[in-house]
Amino acid sequence: MDLNAEIITVGNELISGVQIDTNSAYLAQQLFAQGITVQRIISVGDEEEIITQVITESIRRAPLIIITGGLGPTSDDITTEVVAKALGKKLVFYPEILEQIEKVLAGYNVPMSERQKKQAYFPEGAEIIPNLRGTAPGFFLKEGESLLVVLPGVPQEVEAMVNETVIPRLEREWLRSIYYQSRMLRLFGISESKANDQLQDILVTAKDISISFLPQYPEINIRITVRAKTKEESEQKLTYWEKEIKKRLEPYLFGVDHETLEEVVGNFLRKAKATIAVAESCTGGLIGHRLTNIPGSSDYVERVLVVYSNRAKIELLKVPEEVINTYGAVSEKTAKLMAEGVRNLAKTTLGLATTGIAGPTGGSLDKPVGTVYISLTDGKETLTQRYHFSGERQQIKWMTSEVALNQVRKYFLKLTNETTNLIKGVSP
Amino acid sequence: MDLNAEIITVGNELISGVQIDTNSAYLAQQLFAQGITVQRIISVGDEEEIITQVITESIRRAPLIIITGGLGPTSDDITTEVVAKALGKKLVFYPEILEQIEKVLAGYNVPMSERQKKQAYFPEGAEIIPNLRGTAPGFFLKEGESLLVVLPGVPQEVEAMVNETVIPRLEREWLRSIYYQSRMLRLFGISESKANDQLQDILVTAKDISISFLPQYPEINIRITVRAKTKEESEQKLTYWEKEIKKRLEPYLFGVDHETLEEVVGNFLRKAKATIAVAESCTGGLIGHRLTNIPGSSDYVERVLVVYSNRAKIELLKVPEEVINTYGAVSEKTAKLMAEGVRNLAKTTLGLATTGIAGPTGGSLDKPVGTVYISLTDGKETLTQRYHFSGERQQIKWMTSEVALNQVRKYFLKLTNETTNLIKGVSP
Repeated sequence: MDLNAEIITVGNELISGVQIDTNSAYLAQQLFAQGITVQRIISVGDEEEIITQVITESIRRAPLIIITGGLGPTSDDITTEVVAKALGKKLVFYPEILEQIEKVLAGYNVPMSERQKKQAYFPEGAEIIPNLRGTAPGFFLKEGESLLVVLPGVPQEVEAMVNETVIPRLEREWLRSIYYQSRMLRLFGISESKANDQLQDILVTAKDISISFLPQYPEINIRITVRAKTKEESEQKLTYWEKEIKKRLEPYLFGVDHETLEEVVGNFLRKAKATIAVAESCTGGLIGHRLTNIPGSSDYVERVLVVYSNRAKIELLKVPEEVINTYGAVSEKTAKLMAEGVRNLAKTTLGLATTGIAGPTGGSLDKPVGTVYISLTDGKETLTQRYHFSGERQQIKWMTSEVALNQVRKYFLKLTNETTNLIKGVSP
Repeated sequence: MDLNAEIITVGNELISGVQIDTNSAYLAQQLFAQGITVQRIISVGDEEEIITQVITESIRRAPLIIITGGLGPTSDDITTEVVAKALGKKLVFYPEILEQIEKVLAGYNVPMSERQKKQAYFPEGAEIIPNLRGTAPGFFLKEGESLLVVLPGVPQEVEAMVNETVIPRLEREWLRSIYYQSRMLRLFGISESKANDQLQDILVTAKDISISFLPQYPEINIRITVRAKTKEESEQKLTYWEKEIKKRLEPYLFGVDHETLEEVVGNFLRKAKATIAVAESCTGGLIGHRLTNIPGSSDYVERVLVVYSNRAKIELLKVPEEVINTYGAVSEKTAKLMAEGVRNLAKTTLGLATTGIAGPTGGSLDKPVGTVYISLTDGKETLTQRYHFSGERQQIKWMTSEVALNQVRKYFLKLTNETTNLIKGVSP
């Protein structure tokens, strides 16, 4: 059977927009992986009437309803009461749960308040979902053909409870006959509509695959999903289609699933036993920050110099003052000398440099805001390119860091291809 | 009248959890500020039947319905068609809109594809909402007593269209009799529950104010909202309560509304005509990145040296090799010499340094993962402190950058207080 679910997230902070609802995306991902289709995600405030309405409606439509939020100790936390009332159940006190709450609080050196007692009441018939990370346990409740899963609102608690208790219970509750597999392909350097064009043949003819385009500035993610009657079949299908799509988008594809560009670049550097030094001007440290987000990056990041002033460029990187005066701090010559300068100083395999005008001021007719030079050198060759990026200051910084990191990725790709070609060349 | 609204966000990426819905929070904030209460936010996939159902239901309940997503050129973008069908309207071709789309694409040097033509069709009676940042215009559509607002899914486009066209139109459409005002107070260095305690008297007695606590790691935001019958009255109330709350949380409050810590630090530096240089180890460029996110930061950020290797610390900052060998790269002495070294080199007012173990490896019994030293010097005095932060690598980096920037803020606060005291001291 194909199993449908609805997610209800409760809290005034959601409908007033002060908090972005991340729980529903997490839950949807987990359910999706279980072959369960989420049909609606509904967010409502802490108001009895509306919560009652949406729960009643969802029960009519879906066999599985997951509710998050409103299980806390404060007076606006009313989810448990409303669920009980909506289903005509009494609230029952669980003394052993109160003891557990006391223990959790003791772990944080916090004495239990009178307020907290309310978190040990549940609708009759409820099965408790333990919460080892907070004071609000959740619960399962059966209502006719529907199963309600009620969880707190704190994302870390939700994630743990879903993994530890909810998913195992769902696996026991329903036998599934459809298996889903999905993969995210991560691209940079191509537009959404061009990527769409490249996959036109697949989009038109393939029936057993669904493809979504998910722009995530400045990258494009393509999510492939396949469904099949057995787990093996779904895995085979995924492998087949992944290969077909990769073929069509090869030059732009830098990673899959949760891989980041900085992780891919880090892997290349590590594999080649290479090191890198960066001279950043307009990116202000963003490239360094991204590279050092990867555990173990101290193995290949030697130093990053944010030479924000001209004096820093001259003193640290030995860019001649005349070059800056003649061509400007934002120029091909300066970028090249920055990359070579930082490499010489740090004695690394690669030197990478950025210089540009991130705005909002500082642009000219000749070099408008968004003009950026990126330079990469390995000591033998230096490649310096001029770009013009649009957007706000932070977007220009981000885009520059992305193109710069991608430049390093392309450097290693070319190296790999050349080595491969070389090997091909000498083989009989 | 009190005006209710519902928000419908459309897209398979939402119900499969691959993308977090940020548009609805943005829309809810904007509507809230207009005195419009969002009662439900509903996310659904790209499926005609369900989209039709939720639109029909929402029209029955609310006078204002905002729909986002599904206006793109690809085949899974069906919102316009479904809206037209659900309301029994024909689709009409707008040649002038097609011309505009062509212009937008030309700006990106992209030729128009056949596919894009679909974005120039709208339900009859629609009023177009221009989209200057993308190819998908939105539209208003009246249906009985309800107003539908249909927007694309790209957040930057939604934000611009809401500000430029939707809000002005809503202001003309409905006269409101309740005025809301709200303010976000931004705190660092205090826990949510302690902040709650400090405001206990207000929380218990004040009837005309609502206060929400919104932890946004590692900061705490407190949102105050007041409502009143006139705009003037609501402004007076807000001013009064803001002052009362600030009194109780003064030492932790660094900014209001959208102010960031790096912006506040930047303002202090600029006002004092001071400059700063940073030596980052464990933060890897994050402090530089944050400081240079602020327009005009080149006026006070002279340079940032990410001295990731010991060699970089020794060569660039003149930290003696013996100090690193004896005390370690992560030590009070090294941090102090880094701050002083970078200040001497850059000849700036202030020198700031971080060195620590961001993990996941590299910790020891003595200095576990999360051990961080932060040092700030003005050439006369150097303050170096040891911290132990918990969490993952990126959280430790972030927390370190936050405490370091806050250290600079506190430096200027103390300076301001001392100057004030001095003035007080000499005045009669």
